[in-house]
Amino acid sequence: MRHDDSQQFASDNYSGICPEAWGAMEAANRGHAPAYGEDAWTARAADAFRDLFETECEVFFAFNGTAANALALAALCQSYHSVICADSAHVETDECGAPEFFSNGSKLLTVRTEGGKLTPEAIRGLAQNRSDIHFPRPRVVTITQPTETGQVYSLAELRALSATCRELGLALHMDGSRFANACASLGCSPADMTWRSGVDVLCFGGTKNGMHAGEAVVFFDRKLAEDFGYRCKQAGQLASKMRFLAAPWVGMLESGAWLRNAAHGNACARHFADSVAGLPGVRALFPVEANAVFLTMPAATMEGLRARGWRFYTFIGGGARFMFAWDARPERVDELVRDLRTLAAAAA
Amino acid sequence: MRHDDSQQFASDNYSGICPEAWGAMEAANRGHAPAYGEDAWTARAADAFRDLFETECEVFFAFNGTAANALALAALCQSYHSVICADSAHVETDECGAPEFFSNGSKLLTVRTEGGKLTPEAIRGLAQNRSDIHFPRPRVVTITQPTETGQVYSLAELRALSATCRELGLALHMDGSRFANACASLGCSPADMTWRSGVDVLCFGGTKNGMHAGEAVVFFDRKLAEDFGYRCKQAGQLASKMRFLAAPWVGMLESGAWLRNAAHGNACARHFADSVAGLPGVRALFPVEANAVFLTMPAATMEGLRARGWRFYTFIGGGARFMFAWDARPERVDELVRDLRTLAAAAA
Amino acid sequence: MRHDDSQQFASDNYSGICPEAWGAMEAANRGHAPAYGEDAWTARAADAFRDLFETECEVFFAFNGTAANALALAALCQSYHSVICADSAHVETDECGAPEFFSNGSKLLTVRTEGGKLTPEAIRGLAQNRSDIHFPRPRVVTITQPTETGQVYSLAELRALSATCRELGLALHMDGSRFANACASLGCSPADMTWRSGVDVLCFGGTKNGMHAGEAVVFFDRKLAEDFGYRCKQAGQLASKMRFLAAPWVGMLESGAWLRNAAHGNACARHFADSVAGLPGVRALFPVEANAVFLTMPAATMEGLRARGWRFYTFIGGGARFMFAWDARPERVDELVRDLRTLAAAAA
Amino acid sequence: MRHDDSQQFASDNYSGICPEAWGAMEAANRGHAPAYGEDAWTARAADAFRDLFETECEVFFAFNGTAANALALAALCQSYHSVICADSAHVETDECGAPEFFSNGSKLLTVRTEGGKLTPEAIRGLAQNRSDIHFPRPRVVTITQPTETGQVYSLAELRALSATCRELGLALHMDGSRFANACASLGCSPADMTWRSGVDVLCFGGTKNGMHAGEAVVFFDRKLAEDFGYRCKQAGQLASKMRFLAAPWVGMLESGAWLRNAAHGNACARHFADSVAGLPGVRALFPVEANAVFLTMPAATMEGLRARGWRFYTFIGGGARFMFAWDARPERVDELVRDLRTLAAAAA
Repeated sequence: MRHDDSQQFASDNYSGICPEAWGAMEAANRGHAPAYGEDAWTARAADAFRDLFETECEVFFAFNGTAANALALAALCQSYHSVICADSAHVETDECGAPEFFSNGSKLLTVRTEGGKLTPEAIRGLAQNRSDIHFPRPRVVTITQPTETGQVYSLAELRALSATCRELGLALHMDGSRFANACASLGCSPADMTWRSGVDVLCFGGTKNGMHAGEAVVFFDRKLAEDFGYRCKQAGQLASKMRFLAAPWVGMLESGAWLRNAAHGNACARHFADSVAGLPGVRALFPVEANAVFLTMPAATMEGLRARGWRFYTFIGGGARFMFAWDARPERVDELVRDLRTLAAAAA
Repeated sequence: MRHDDSQQFASDNYSGICPEAWGAMEAANRGHAPAYGEDAWTARAADAFRDLFETECEVFFAFNGTAANALALAALCQSYHSVICADSAHVETDECGAPEFFSNGSKLLTVRTEGGKLTPEAIRGLAQNRSDIHFPRPRVVTITQPTETGQVYSLAELRALSATCRELGLALHMDGSRFANACASLGCSPADMTWRSGVDVLCFGGTKNGMHAGEAVVFFDRKLAEDFGYRCKQAGQLASKMRFLAAPWVGMLESGAWLRNAAHGNACARHFADSVAGLPGVRALFPVEANAVFLTMPAATMEGLRARGWRFYTFIGGGARFMFAWDARPERVDELVRDLRTLAAAAA
Repeated sequence: MRHDDSQQFASDNYSGICPEAWGAMEAANRGHAPAYGEDAWTARAADAFRDLFETECEVFFAFNGTAANALALAALCQSYHSVICADSAHVETDECGAPEFFSNGSKLLTVRTEGGKLTPEAIRGLAQNRSDIHFPRPRVVTITQPTETGQVYSLAELRALSATCRELGLALHMDGSRFANACASLGCSPADMTWRSGVDVLCFGGTKNGMHAGEAVVFFDRKLAEDFGYRCKQAGQLASKMRFLAAPWVGMLESGAWLRNAAHGNACARHFADSVAGLPGVRALFPVEANAVFLTMPAATMEGLRARGWRFYTFIGGGARFMFAWDARPERVDELVRDLRTLAAAAA
Repeated sequence: MRHDDSQQFASDNYSGICPEAWGAMEAANRGHAPAYGEDAWTARAADAFRDLFETECEVFFAFNGTAANALALAALCQSYHSVICADSAHVETDECGAPEFFSNGSKLLTVRTEGGKLTPEAIRGLAQNRSDIHFPRPRVVTITQPTETGQVYSLAELRALSATCRELGLALHMDGSRFANACASLGCSPADMTWRSGVDVLCFGGTKNGMHAGEAVVFFDRKLAEDFGYRCKQAGQLASKMRFLAAPWVGMLESGAWLRNAAHGNACARHFADSVAGLPGVRALFPVEANAVFLTMPAATMEGLRARGWRFYTFIGGGARFMFAWDARPERVDELVRDLRTLAAAAA
């Protein structure tokens, strides 16, 4: 089947498998190996996470982000508790009620935000708004790093959030479906961006990062991971041939591809944003800090891009979202820049 | 990493990815493709199922058997209904309560069986045992084909079961984690073994059949599939890069590997069973009709096999289970035969 | 124990049991009677509902409004569906996530409203906002009649809502925790306000109406009631000594107390609202159409009322809510008027 | 409506409200009182429990036994845990899957017993049978005191069970729907029969004991009660006019009626059992230790009893169950004895 390059910037979920992940799957496909995570690849992948995070974290491998985040949230609260998140958080807007399903009813309490970033004030306001038994008690805060709008919480922001959480007795969960992009953006260590900043549980996304599938649930507080393996199993997230879910992580982490891939996507986004800055009628909706660029532009310009075959989403803020995956091709980025420049000039 | 051939017959979940599945994944790994099943590979895989089953069935792709079976059962009943199954059914014994979790509480009602096979009488007995509001109303019967003991329901048996189900207002679900082995065993068409015999929903196992992961939920009554896509999404079973879950199915079904793989496993089991028949102190626990052979033997013999490096499970009936996967190596089968022969003779 | 009359207008949940309900409980307390609803009182109560609604509806008796509404909503949708309601709907703001728990995850989609009233446009907007698999599909609309702000949907409004629901394939549920007050307000028949206006399921509140406990779930479309008895049982809402939950309904409905009680509360609210209309600094937040009056007033005036012993809530819109129960004492209403008049004059 | 005295011994759920409970409800029905348990009656009832149990236990009031037991079990385990119980335990056989529903999937593991009594050996066997992730991990043992067969665990038996539980890391829950009957039978203090014997959570039944409705969930380990109020609210078990659920407890406990009622039922059962002992063809199925008597007898004898208007259940062991409620009338017991004597003689 032919692949369609016009979809290059529609979504990082549209990208394929990177060589390092593929190579590891290939290497894992030799002979027989114990199932359900009792194999050597799974142990090696978990160790690679512990090395990466410089701590004895507990690691579990889920098939996708829906499950990873929903399982993690369910582990942090009971059905009569609630989860504080931004109004544009993926768990609220695009998971078809998965957190509520996995937790058997925990309510998501959303904060109205400009760009998807939570603040200590917003958390405090929501957490202290109600304390009666008729409203589910807040127990968890979940943040997306980078946000759905492509912005990155600084370490100082993270620390301020976690301090507020600790003060209020809330756990802090990080939805890191593009965790690597945030790391590459801040240039900090994974440890700094997580447990050293007070994050309790991280969902580290492998799919958008270049794998065929797979997200890791990383518990920095090991007590929170108690019996989590049972939870995964019961919820249909324990792979029988686990080695094929684990090996790609080995390929990504041991080779450094996880960070290279992310840095490449970020650089493409940066280059694109810089190249179209100042075009008439075109404006960035959000600061470009990871691998996404959101642009407002005249409707005719959007139409023109579509007519030239470009694909992009417009579900956040009405702007056009361009995502730059691990395999974004620079020459295609430049073609997109040229097309947009032409269309913007014509519209002006 | 080295693979360990002594595990050859421990479980078909220990096997790797067959060339046809691998090749399709490789072919699918070109450029960008829409996510969440909107890609061409997913459409092609679903069509391949419709061709295979000679009917316009609805097909959904789940990551593993736990989820496929639990989702299918949840779609067939409400939380206050119940599911009739054999006492040795995998959904009862080895899914950590997944059916109860996905259905929010549906109870499994187990029938005490010799070898895991349900009968019309057993179903009738259980379905009519209680009709008061204090006990969850039976709505579904689930059978495993082949059973966990490696036996295969004949077409006549299937038709008798489904007639009973229809009479009692029960849906019939088939857990086909080794569906291909049953097809190969009966030599019948997939259509004959399912909807033509009255099966409403099938979970067709791809993992043990030679894929890296993946089970298909096939609805023959399309009305039962209403909104099932939402169910999968909410439950964390919608792959973002779906093409990598769908393409292997294309490779398996279009090439005929699904049936060849199964036939090979069955033949190895048959050969092994025949070769050890009549050994002193060794006896088959169940008729060998698919790719499993369960043998009782003296404890010392089992010990001897383990001492020689062979791995096998003893969780059903206390016997040793030998599973023959799609890639079972005939020379290793013969080595196992020789070792068992030697040990049995020594024990006699 | 002494009762505290200063709480007279804090909540209609603070009121006691009316003579008609009490008398029926007393009459029911003779000898032995079958449990779990197999008794004569339960049958008679269900018949009383069918008489009242002039139709062969199905009736179930739940212990409280939390359960009645949550069970009804759960019966109308699956976990991956969603429920449209006003932002101030009790099911959203004061049930601790009960609808999400009973339905195993159905999301409530709230419409921002001024006074808690849904409109066809709001429903259409929300129902058609998303149609992708990543967001729970809307299946139910729930309205509160009268609203939490004490307003009543007219029959024309109800018919417009139900027409929209039917057009969009949505079921229409009515949370009638103060259903009788709405009936008394509109002066229409219960049938007109429900099934003749397109309501599918009603939760009819008995507690605030003068019973010790008890809400009736009334299905006008009997097909929707299939197996609902099992649902109630499993969810802990089937009373063993059901006669004591059913008899009060007989007392209320057969005597007409249900309507008299409500009319009295409404009249007190009307009288209070009329009496304080035009007081300086005091203003009604919402039209007074049932038994609630919401007033904005200076903080000092509120303080003054509290200092004189009056109790009231301020959780909606910041105003003071005064609720007039079936047993509101007119002389106390007048005392409250006098106190408020004095305080308002002092503040002016 | 007329009451039917032939149902006197069919079920203690068929009995009415005793004077002490009724009187307290009447006393509570004065004026207004705060809702949702903020009233004085609720505080007084909770204190009465703390006095009765001689410890600072946490007490919650649920509407019925289904909910009380299911909520308690759900508080003690997660969905991927399991609960050990006897095969004849009410939670297994007659709650329509309520424990599974409230816990979102916890599996009940049943022990085959003769008369419904668990033993340390049976618990150990089941708890240690499986320790892999594919089977829900045992976390709770639930026992019914007295059992569904009318037998009473001795204090020594209770202590042996709790020692085993503690050793294995299991919580011990007591379903005490007839708790008072067990206390009366053993002649021990409630404290001795619960926390002093190692019980963690008790569901104390008020309904069969003489109330209109109501069961108390008593946590002896207060940590286990954390946020349990939220759990009750979300699950539809927080009464708005709580005083009417709490006051009867005050009436029962402060007056001693709870124990008198139970002792009377026990004495009637004892008298009945003694009176029919030795009748030809009639034999007690279980030791008579509380208020139930199970008798095997010829089918014709059962028919004869029914023809004379007597009502009884035959769902356990095929025998006829006669239950003696708090209001069992001795002259009716004697009539039953005479009828049975006559019929047994005729059959011999």
